Amino acid sequence: MTTEEKHKEYYNRLSKLQGKYLNYFVAGFVDGEASFSVAMTRQKYPSLSKGWRWILNPVFNVYQHEGNKDMLLLLRDRVFKTGRLHRKTSPYNVFTFSIENNKTLHGKIVPFFKTYQLATKAEDFKKFSCIVDMIDKKIHLDIEGFKRIVDIAFTMNAYGKNRKYSKEYIFETLSDQFDTLRKSSETIRQNQPVKADKI
Amino acid sequence: MTTEEKHKEYYNRLSKLQGKYLNYFVAGFVDGEASFSVAMTRQKYPSLSKGWRWILNPVFNVYQHEGNKDMLLLLRDRVFKTGRLHRKTSPYNVFTFSIENNKTLHGKIVPFFKTYQLATKAEDFKKFSCIVDMIDKKIHLDIEGFKRIVDIAFTMNAYGKNRKYSKEYIFETLSDQFDTLRKSSETIRQNQPVKADKI
Repeated sequence: MTTEEKHKEYYNRLSKLQGKYLNYFVAGFVDGEASFSVAMTRQKYPSLSKGWRWILNPVFNVYQHEGNKDMLLLLRDRVFKTGRLHRKTSPYNVFTFSIENNKTLHGKIVPFFKTYQLATKAEDFKKFSCIVDMIDKKIHLDIEGFKRIVDIAFTMNAYGKNRKYSKEYIFETLSDQFDTLRKSSETIRQNQPVKADKI
Repeated sequence: MTTEEKHKEYYNRLSKLQGKYLNYFVAGFVDGEASFSVAMTRQKYPSLSKGWRWILNPVFNVYQHEGNKDMLLLLRDRVFKTGRLHRKTSPYNVFTFSIENNKTLHGKIVPFFKTYQLATKAEDFKKFSCIVDMIDKKIHLDIEGFKRIVDIAFTMNAYGKNRKYSKEYIFETLSDQFDTLRKSSETIRQNQPVKADKI
């Protein structure tokens, strides 16, 4: 039997576990291997004088070496039945399973980990689920609500030590996108994936 | 509530899960965060002309950042009820929970993961349990058996790419410790932890 066939066998065996057992296994696996984070990204937005706006982007990620890609397929196809798999640019031999859509996070991921609870990631998950809920309630469409979410996001994942932008910089450059919002009747969907035109 | 109190609460909640659910959670966690390996170390042994002998040392390790030390305490105190916790020298903020005693590995760890099966670590675990079983049957006390175990160990964990000593070097320098063994009536316990006088 090749290594690949053996792997298929292990995942097949795992996926046949009784539902609850599989879900507890997944909770344990996610507790070690996943991240719950809220990215702050700049999206092109020509109608603003600075040409971009801030986007809040909650994302649930699970990383695995390419040799264990089947584990991510199991999460996507058998456990959560949603999400996206992609190869990282660096390191190239790592795959990511990710869910960014706030409706899916709110309707599927948060309820899952409220039932099958985490331990080492419990605190980050609690904050993450609070932010997902606030976005679902459209609290981020108001500048004060947006700032409250940013405040919470910056206490996650070791107090945002790996963040590209400081909270001060975000707060300083935030106001004009809400002025525009007030002036227009357009509904801004802050929480959509914006990978394509991130700047 | 302080971060530490919150952590205690999460682990307390986890440890109160129904036995099987906790065990599946642990299997998932271990699948992501643990390693099953067989170390090859040199131990001082003055009666051999080269002054040392080879030791086979199967070990089950789980690593966690010091902030998640409680998770390792849970593994030690509630799940496996054995094992040892220690801070790594480098990086200093990481703790290791480890089990090295072959009787414990054979009697507790291997049966646990035969019931609560792994996925990404399934192949390494299979080889590990085979080696633990061979040592339990004292197959390593004969040079041919020892070599068979080394052969298997070198196919584990990405074909031993991080090993200090090559298989060729081990095989070249192995014979005299078995000559000595044959000459003496001493029982060599190859599989005991030898941290103190590792060279």
